[in-house]
Amino acid sequence: MPSGRALEMLRNLLGDASVLTAETLSGRHLTDWSGEGFATPEAVLLPRTPPDVAAALAICAREGQPLAIQGGLTGLAGGANPQPGEFVLSLAKLNNIETLDEMGGTVIGQAGVNLGTLQDYLGARGWHLPLDLGARGSCQIGGNAATNAGGNRVLRYGMMRDSVLGLEVALPDGTLLTMLNQVIKNNAGLDLKHLFIGSEGTLGVITRLSLKLIPLPNARCTALCALPSFQAATHLLREARRSLPELASFELMWDGYVAAALSVLRRPSPFHERHAVYVLIETLGTDEPAMQTAIERCLEHLVESRIVEDAVIAKSLEQAKSLWDIREAASELMSKLRPFIAFDVSAPLREMEGFVNRMSELLQSSYPTQQHLFFGHLGDGNLHLLTGPYADDAALHDVKMRVYAAVEAIGGSISAETGIGFAKKEFLARSRSPDEMALMRALKNTVDPQHILNRGRIFD
Amino acid sequence: MPSGRALEMLRNLLGDASVLTAETLSGRHLTDWSGEGFATPEAVLLPRTPPDVAAALAICAREGQPLAIQGGLTGLAGGANPQPGEFVLSLAKLNNIETLDEMGGTVIGQAGVNLGTLQDYLGARGWHLPLDLGARGSCQIGGNAATNAGGNRVLRYGMMRDSVLGLEVALPDGTLLTMLNQVIKNNAGLDLKHLFIGSEGTLGVITRLSLKLIPLPNARCTALCALPSFQAATHLLREARRSLPELASFELMWDGYVAAALSVLRRPSPFHERHAVYVLIETLGTDEPAMQTAIERCLEHLVESRIVEDAVIAKSLEQAKSLWDIREAASELMSKLRPFIAFDVSAPLREMEGFVNRMSELLQSSYPTQQHLFFGHLGDGNLHLLTGPYADDAALHDVKMRVYAAVEAIGGSISAETGIGFAKKEFLARSRSPDEMALMRALKNTVDPQHILNRGRIFD
Repeated sequence: MPSGRALEMLRNLLGDASVLTAETLSGRHLTDWSGEGFATPEAVLLPRTPPDVAAALAICAREGQPLAIQGGLTGLAGGANPQPGEFVLSLAKLNNIETLDEMGGTVIGQAGVNLGTLQDYLGARGWHLPLDLGARGSCQIGGNAATNAGGNRVLRYGMMRDSVLGLEVALPDGTLLTMLNQVIKNNAGLDLKHLFIGSEGTLGVITRLSLKLIPLPNARCTALCALPSFQAATHLLREARRSLPELASFELMWDGYVAAALSVLRRPSPFHERHAVYVLIETLGTDEPAMQTAIERCLEHLVESRIVEDAVIAKSLEQAKSLWDIREAASELMSKLRPFIAFDVSAPLREMEGFVNRMSELLQSSYPTQQHLFFGHLGDGNLHLLTGPYADDAALHDVKMRVYAAVEAIGGSISAETGIGFAKKEFLARSRSPDEMALMRALKNTVDPQHILNRGRIFD
Repeated sequence: MPSGRALEMLRNLLGDASVLTAETLSGRHLTDWSGEGFATPEAVLLPRTPPDVAAALAICAREGQPLAIQGGLTGLAGGANPQPGEFVLSLAKLNNIETLDEMGGTVIGQAGVNLGTLQDYLGARGWHLPLDLGARGSCQIGGNAATNAGGNRVLRYGMMRDSVLGLEVALPDGTLLTMLNQVIKNNAGLDLKHLFIGSEGTLGVITRLSLKLIPLPNARCTALCALPSFQAATHLLREARRSLPELASFELMWDGYVAAALSVLRRPSPFHERHAVYVLIETLGTDEPAMQTAIERCLEHLVESRIVEDAVIAKSLEQAKSLWDIREAASELMSKLRPFIAFDVSAPLREMEGFVNRMSELLQSSYPTQQHLFFGHLGDGNLHLLTGPYADDAALHDVKMRVYAAVEAIGGSISAETGIGFAKKEFLARSRSPDEMALMRALKNTVDPQHILNRGRIFD
């Protein structure tokens, strides 16, 4: 049993107070938001410095001790859930915001910094990290980078990858690779940070990040549009991208989703009639009247040509919130549709309508008593399908098989933003070829030859 | 001599017409724009299909035949220049634009497609690739991705990396890795394309690309501002980023550069007086009057508070061009200052003024008869220093040593956009640690164990 010796060395390195054991765990460090399986770990390591992380990895590599790497435990793929025999390595104590460059708009922080805490700190100083997620109150910036988090503003600002200027990463050989680049352009050799961003903790442990900020946008303008067809929504998207440079969100919701959302919110529709699809638009900037005028002008023309059938422009933050409530009712709908599947796929825009129609028909005919609700970040080609409740695991698995096969057929991705972890590993071949899998494994073997980091996540 | 057998197999694979030899070369395929050394290659391979590229690599790997990979030969680091014993592999015949998705705004093209040709094709259909470079008439999109090209609009649209959705890459083991993802969000496993983008042809040969487009911007607004200090320019940058969402370029020029540029252009200054620094601003969008008003409003306030001392807003495309002429006079200045060094470094914004002052003093005291001209993409932290003429190689080397040491001291990058190749290899340790170099080499050894691809570029 290798864990005894490793544990003793880790206690010597980190100190007893930084090594929790089964008795002192109190239910934390066990599972993320995915509902995937987990085992109670024999030890939870809470290193307080980046060099301690690197030294801990070196011990575990030598002793063959596998680790589950944990950030804020808000993942939806189960990657952070400890498996039998694994220790947990948590970044929770590495939570210092280290340096803000107020002139250049960059910040260096430790991996365990909470996203919401960082946003508050930056906002008070006129800066902003454009990443925004439902999990903002619990997630950590190290985990955001390790999983390449997405969210509601990818259309304008990109994924977390696009906000990362530099990383510090601890490797299984004990190296602490400090690449805390603070410059925007850097073509001096291979850009190694990209190897670790989105690798879900399988190649190294992120200990610090250098992030690119934007000036805090202090005005926003929100509108909900009702449209006769998906085709009309793509027309609106093209017009909005062309004429609204501050466009940050473009959220598509099919009628069935909106009806279910309004029902769970116990609210009347903001429109007199029902429409085929709805789009929630939001611009972020500094000049609210100018943004309002720009949205009005963009929509006016489209309403005249019947591409947009109706529209509500929020006149207050409260009204904006009530429009966003419809989009964010997804989480309440999940509670109602349990046991559910929340698909997070992406598809080329030209394939999306056909895909939704085929999936809708297929699911309605095979599972007529369940609800099948479609919505997503249309501007990013990211489609969510919330479907449930399902009586048994066989049905859940059957639905996954069918949906992922259809995603493969249109060249989509089985995971737009939530990663693979354990939850989607079985289906990864739907989005990745054997050659791609072989190269992923070759990289894993190069950087983590003992497979101590998040073993069995993504690939074997 | 391995090349004879390899050559015979390559002729069988590609056909005689696709293998040029010394006699049929006619001066092409020898050197890029860097002025770095080269040797006449024994053979130049011009494969016509992606599978042929992969098969050619497999032959060369088996036979230990090293290759220089060539795109449009516009690089400034010498990476494409053949070395003794190398064959050339050119992407010139892989030049089909394959698929435009007019709904989603994505295009798939072969690596050898010329950037200017692609822009014309896209522009006629209402789409645009936001990469723009001086080399646009000669460079190829495969080379743009392999070197992660930058240019004048990185501030808004990012580097070439940010426009690449997917790649097809031929590997030395003969694998053709097809990852022509057309979706914007894809977290299904490691994002392998980033391994190859910016790797300067050392890890694989890009054969096809899937690119993300923007709606064609059909209006632009250009202004030249005169400011009393670098500090004032950073203030203008922050205000412009905040209030001009369509801001695409923010080019800083110090007074000495502008004076030299106006002299080589034989033009009077657009301003009555001289000023410490000048900033060229450009916004790109669709509504010209609105953009003009936004720039006027942004500058008005700054002129009142003396942060901007004077400003010219272009009232026509011709006037805009004459303002850009000052920025683009850099190429004419190069001819005048030969033998020169054109530094392409980046620095954190807070360090840039001190760096420029120190370098200016140091160079003026050591090389008082040379000109030392500072300018750059301030919004990206990218600084250019054009210095010359130098009488001998020792002086050139001395200047490089001093400048790169100063770049290291402020945590900058010795290559913001032009890469390493052979030209900057000697100085790479100024921007990369031994640990980073070790990981780069480990990746090279994993993917190209025989080191047949661009051997000796970036690292040994």
